[in-house]
This record gives sequence, C-alpha cells and structure tokens, in this order.
Amino acid sequence: MKIKFFSVGGTIDKIYFDAKSEYQIGSPQLIGLLEEANITFEYESESIMQKDSLEMTDADRQLLFDRVAADENKYIVVTHGTDTMVKSALKLSEIKGKTIVLTGALSPARFKFTDAEFNLGLAVAAVQCKGPGVYIAMSGRVFDADKVCKNVQLARFEDIEMIIEN
Amino acid sequence: MKIKFFSVGGTIDKIYFDAKSEYQIGSPQLIGLLEEANITFEYESESIMQKDSLEMTDADRQLLFDRVAADENKYIVVTHGTDTMVKSALKLSEIKGKTIVLTGALSPARFKFTDAEFNLGLAVAAVQCKGPGVYIAMSGRVFDADKVCKNVQLARFEDIEMIIEN
Amino acid sequence: MKIKFFSVGGTIDKIYFDAKSEYQIGSPQLIGLLEEANITFEYESESIMQKDSLEMTDADRQLLFDRVAADENKYIVVTHGTDTMVKSALKLSEIKGKTIVLTGALSPARFKFTDAEFNLGLAVAAVQCKGPGVYIAMSGRVFDADKVCKNVQLARFEDIEMIIEN
Amino acid sequence: MKIKFFSVGGTIDKIYFDAKSEYQIGSPQLIGLLEEANITFEYESESIMQKDSLEMTDADRQLLFDRVAADENKYIVVTHGTDTMVKSALKLSEIKGKTIVLTGALSPARFKFTDAEFNLGLAVAAVQCKGPGVYIAMSGRVFDADKVCKNVQLARFEDIEMIIEN
Repeated sequence: MKIKFFSVGGTIDKIYFDAKSEYQIGSPQLIGLLEEANITFEYESESIMQKDSLEMTDADRQLLFDRVAADENKYIVVTHGTDTMVKSALKLSEIKGKTIVLTGALSPARFKFTDAEFNLGLAVAAVQCKGPGVYIAMSGRVFDADKVCKNVQLARFEDIEMIIEN
Repeated sequence: MKIKFFSVGGTIDKIYFDAKSEYQIGSPQLIGLLEEANITFEYESESIMQKDSLEMTDADRQLLFDRVAADENKYIVVTHGTDTMVKSALKLSEIKGKTIVLTGALSPARFKFTDAEFNLGLAVAAVQCKGPGVYIAMSGRVFDADKVCKNVQLARFEDIEMIIEN
Repeated sequence: MKIKFFSVGGTIDKIYFDAKSEYQIGSPQLIGLLEEANITFEYESESIMQKDSLEMTDADRQLLFDRVAADENKYIVVTHGTDTMVKSALKLSEIKGKTIVLTGALSPARFKFTDAEFNLGLAVAAVQCKGPGVYIAMSGRVFDADKVCKNVQLARFEDIEMIIEN
Repeated sequence: MKIKFFSVGGTIDKIYFDAKSEYQIGSPQLIGLLEEANITFEYESESIMQKDSLEMTDADRQLLFDRVAADENKYIVVTHGTDTMVKSALKLSEIKGKTIVLTGALSPARFKFTDAEFNLGLAVAAVQCKGPGVYIAMSGRVFDADKVCKNVQLARFEDIEMIIEN
C-alpha cells in the first residue's frame, strides 16, 4: 500500500514566525507528524498551495482536482483547511477509481494540544479501509463527502441531516 | 455510532510518579486523548487492568475476552501493550459479530512526541470502516489479526509474510 | 518570598480560537506554566491588559506603571510582548525599591516548542537574585533595563553596545 | 558570559527505548532545551555520567567534583538527579571562586508537561545573578546549598528550617 499526501494549507499547517509576524501557513507539518507516528507504509507528499481554505478560489480547487486526477496513486489523503473542506471534497467526487480522504485540524499541528495527529491517523486508516470514493475524516468520524457539513458555531463536522433538523 | 474502549495497560498508559518511583502504568490516557481530538461520536470507556503486556497471563487474556464478549456494543477498541497485542487479538477472534480493533503506542501518550494520538485515530477509523472481525491498528496500518506480527527488533508491526521472507 | 505577576499580553499569551478566528491574545498562560514547573513560592497574578506590545499606547504603559507602583509587593514579574518590552522597562525604571523583571516569549506558550517556560524560569530566578531595579530576562540572559535592546531582525535581545558596533 | 553545563543524569534525562525496555537515562536533553529557549549566550556542555542520583557513588561524586574544579569556566550549571542533589552540592562547596548551580527535574524533559525547561531557565539566571558559591535551583527557588533539603514525600525542595519545624 502506498499513500500519496497532498497539502493545500489550512489550520493544521499554521505556524508563527516572530513577534512582528502574524500567524501564517507554512510548509506542511505532515512529514513530521508521520515520523512521530512511526508509520511504515510507503508514501509520497506534495504541497500544492499554502492557503486558509476560506481564501481558496475556484481556480485553486481546480488545481487540486487536476493534480489528484492526474496522480498515478490510488490512495490519496489531502490535508486541507476546514472551512471549505466539504466544497473541495464535492469537487473531487468527480474523480473515479481512487480512494480520497480529506482531513485537517481545528488547532495547529505545532500546538502542544492539537487534533492534528489523531485526524491524520483517522485519515490514514480510512484511505486503506474504504473503497473508492471521497471521504472526510474529522471529529473522530469518517463521512461520505456528500453527507457531511461543518457546523461552524460548534467547530465540528456533522451529518447533513443533523443540521437540517435543528 | 457508539464506540466502547477497553484499556488493559501498555506503554501508551505509562506514567512517571517521582524521582524515587519507576515508570509505572497509570490510569488510561484515553479520555484526555479523545478530548484533545475534538471527537463527537458517543463512547464509553472501561479500564480492565493496568499491565505491561509481557506480564499479562492467560487468565488476564481470558478476562479481557469475557468482558469484550459480554459487552453490548458492536464497535470495540482495545488499548493494549504492543508485545503480546497479537496474542490477545487472536484470542478475541473467537468473538463473532463485533468489530474489534487493538491499538497501543511505542512511546507513552504523556510524551511530547508520541504515536499515541495517531494510533488512536487509526483505530477509531478502522472500527467504523471495517466489517466484523479483529484488527490491529499500528505502524500506520490496519492489519487482520491473523496476518500480523510485531518485529521486536525494528519496533514495528508487519505482515506475517514479510517476516518469513527475511 | 512572594512574587506578584502582572500580564499585559504579548506572544506568550497568543491562543487560537477556531478556523475562522485569527490568532488572538487570550487569558494569561502564566498560572498553567507555574503549575507545570512545580513551584512552591507564594504568588499572586493579575492581568492588566491583553495586547500585542506594538499596540500598547502611552496610556497603557502609564496604567502598567501605576499598577506596579501602587502594588504592595517588592518582587514583580511582568509578562509582556517583546517589541516594546524595553520601552515599558524604561518607564518602570522610575519606580524605586522594587525588583521588577520583564519577560515574554518569541513563540506562544501553547506551542509544543516554546521559550515561554524557560523565560519564566529565568525571570523568577532574576527577581529573587537581583537587588532593586528593572531588568529584562530574555534570550537566556538577565539585562539591566537601560543596557538592552531587541534586535528585531535576529529576533533576540542584545546588549546596547553590540548594536552600536554593527 | 560563558556558561559550562555538566550533565550527570537524573530524571531530566530519562528516555524510553521501546516496549521491552525500561525507562533509562539517555544522552543529555540539555542542548535541545537550550535551542528551544532561543538562548544567545556562549556555552559548552559535557556529559560526565548518566545515572539516577540514588545510584551515584562517592567515586562518582568525586569525579564530578574533579571535573568542575579543573574546569576553566567560572559559571557552571550541573543537571543532576534530585534525590542526592543536595549531597553533591555540599561536596562541590569546597570549590572556591566559581558560581555553581545544580538543577534537574521531577518529570523528564521529554514529557509534554515537565518542569525541565523552567528549571533550566531558573538555573541559567541564577548562575549569572549570584556571586561565587554553590546553589540549587529547584521548585521555583534559588537556594544556598547548605540551607536546602528535598522533601521526598511532597516531591519538592525546601528551606532546611521548614523541615525541622514540622
């Protein structure tokens, strides 16, 4: 099993330069997280862009789509900002024959307390256990891309039905 | 989806009391790890014992078996020491109709750098994506219980075949 | 020995709310850091404001001055943003008979890697070992307030002479 | 100012190898801690031994004494196990003309929560602010070597008088 990781930015990759800088999105934290996890599967990683997901344009999403579609690997994990993760997942749903899992974090991987490591583990298991399709691995759950939304107020991902009910 | 977590000890739960104490196995770190991960699924947790897995006896393994078999939940995650994790997994294989995932860590959850959070995420995705059966979620992979072994020298879990080949 | 801690904000107290928020300055991290350090001396802490030090006005600095001057304690530590720490230290120099140490951090206390704990330890030793006066405890050194400046480019505190030479 | 650091082991340097190993004392964590703290002073470090302080013999203590006495530097910090730190400090008191500060930690530097960074900051300020003599920097305080003891039950360092009173 070989997994290809794409990074497009988001909170998971937020870093902090110095007292005069704002927090910014830096190089993917992914490789450090995988080393810490003592993983043994084969993988490749590629950074496509470093953006807050609210700032991702349609062109950015098209670029992500093109890279994933053109990639030779069958198992794909995308680390992504949480605010438009569902939008990107729906766009990627047009790609057939691959298992694609999007994940990210609500607090930066550089924090002492962060959901980044857990979420990455969640995504890595989902990509190898699920069949072809597009999934979101967040909030401790593996969702189908077309059945999930982010509850911004509660800062969590939920089944679409749950939102409609409230 | 509701997940039931059982803890039996192992490195993941190693703590340190004071300068005169040895490292010992303490209360399960599980709940703290799940809170840090911002999970939203329903769960219950239960500590059965606090042991290095090398010290687990057949009676201990029977006790774990009895508790899991008697439990009303269908989705089970067991945090366990790594050295006899496969042995316990094989024992649990006699239980039908449940999805059971064993995980643990090579370095304690209390460490600044640890595989505990990633492995727990891996197990949580595996238990919800796999069908009934017994699995080991370690080294970034989800293994069938009867096709995995721990490579003690390299401190990692591998396919059984891989070991035979070398 | 009793130490009074005042917090006015700065990077040391930067926190992160959720994916839509910017990094912001939150409640002082001080008490958590002192508990982690197993300290045994008596202390009190008070938050005066929560600001980036670049945004501190003359009125803010006057407020800090008034609170410190009016305080009954002799040993004072101030956690402060680094960019105008020297300016505040010089203002506080008009206060006689107290030992006042300013410290802060170049990366937030919430980070896995941060100078916050070390710097706080540095300040706590300085306030009890130095006589009355105003000092800055940063970059692993204890400086007199009138002999130090921040080298913004190198993100560190230096002797004034060193800057003049270059 | 140049500081010479000597390491002799203790909890601060405890590490963990794998599931079959016990916790052991490893290479000094010192350099990593100093880098994390963004210190700018000149320093040298030397590991003399890697022992729990309860296992240090008179010969070990003589070796530490000889190395410190022979060292050309005036500012000395020793990282040491806590249980016999006072005994070593008293032995080092025969050395004149140097400022010597002993410190350590109650939980390993590798832990997510540890007093190691704070204590090292405490020691670094003490060695530059105090005059010649031997000091212990622990529990948030800087003690004279002949006026301190470890309260083993409460896992903290205290003034000798405090113990006598109780």
